[in-house]
Amino acid sequence: METVLENRTWRYATKKFDTHKKVSGGDLDILLEATRLSASSYGLQPYHVFVITDQELKEKLKPASWGQSQITDASHIIVFANKTDFGEELVDEYLQNVSKTRNIPAENLKGYSDFMKSKLLGLSTEEKSVWTSKQAYLAFGNMMQAAAELKIDTCPMEGFEAERYNKILGLDGKNLNAAVVLAIGYRSEEDETQHYPKVRKSKEELFTYL
Amino acid sequence: METVLENRTWRYATKKFDTHKKVSGGDLDILLEATRLSASSYGLQPYHVFVITDQELKEKLKPASWGQSQITDASHIIVFANKTDFGEELVDEYLQNVSKTRNIPAENLKGYSDFMKSKLLGLSTEEKSVWTSKQAYLAFGNMMQAAAELKIDTCPMEGFEAERYNKILGLDGKNLNAAVVLAIGYRSEEDETQHYPKVRKSKEELFTYL
Repeated sequence: METVLENRTWRYATKKFDTHKKVSGGDLDILLEATRLSASSYGLQPYHVFVITDQELKEKLKPASWGQSQITDASHIIVFANKTDFGEELVDEYLQNVSKTRNIPAENLKGYSDFMKSKLLGLSTEEKSVWTSKQAYLAFGNMMQAAAELKIDTCPMEGFEAERYNKILGLDGKNLNAAVVLAIGYRSEEDETQHYPKVRKSKEELFTYL
Repeated sequence: METVLENRTWRYATKKFDTHKKVSGGDLDILLEATRLSASSYGLQPYHVFVITDQELKEKLKPASWGQSQITDASHIIVFANKTDFGEELVDEYLQNVSKTRNIPAENLKGYSDFMKSKLLGLSTEEKSVWTSKQAYLAFGNMMQAAAELKIDTCPMEGFEAERYNKILGLDGKNLNAAVVLAIGYRSEEDETQHYPKVRKSKEELFTYL
């Protein structure tokens, strides 16, 4: 149980990565599998995840990331892209998967399909995009935590220009939008920020017991 | 490393809680501390968390939660409320905390303060609220995962009426909005859904390697 807090104390937003240390293929597989298992609303996973190692591509993303060196120094850059719009296919494809995975005839899922569609398809495009981006943040939080469990360092990044990312990654016209970025790798010994005490609201400020 | 995936496979959206088993005070403390340590944009934690055990209050929330029995059966109901608006005070209070925690004179943080304010205070109220709700989802995802590490079951819930929650919890006029709910406790042996295979997108569908 102690490790629950140890991992979370060990983790910090890494400012300077060791450019020589790369996340191994085995660790990356575990990290991605952990992310794939993330919960999402109705289980729909309305996002796509880009796993970037190509150094040339990272160089292109850097100026679109306020010039932050984590983009080029980190081992991998993970871009969570949320669906900016969707229709019936989001629910239909999910339920085909449910039908196959759980061996349930599709017609038995008709009621559930109608229910989900009634909840989701009436949303405006803007509301859909907000909802999908929240699901992306949930998976993003889960990935950060899984990385800490694997003693992989991370820097969560909102400091980038989504429109430029979308262009560079070819997301335009695909109903996808770069929502949030995670740089992963290993902290440089020179990163002074690893020694800074964590700044958090006190329990009294953050929680109300009712 | 195996536990990274074991915890995530063990976890499922618990539909039926054991009404007799309560989360201990010690475990709850660890869970909340893990949540308190969550990352957030700039470290601002722009949300408040309600920890509900009062059965009468849970009974009031149930009809506002599509009548779902998890609300009254679970040990605790956690409501993440995001800030629907904020001004300079959000940054100022955070930097006072930075100054105190890291023993840095406040005047040395002036540049960082100006930078954060330039990024955040120009957002529309709607944009602020979307941004704070994403931070709440990040913490929410982290709490779900911490619970799994502690072998505490959870049911993540978006199926509730935020406006009714806000009224019941007295959030109106406090710039807070019920964003997402986590029921925590222990699965009932009778909950058949614990035996269902997980339905997730395949690696090929979810990830693109670049």
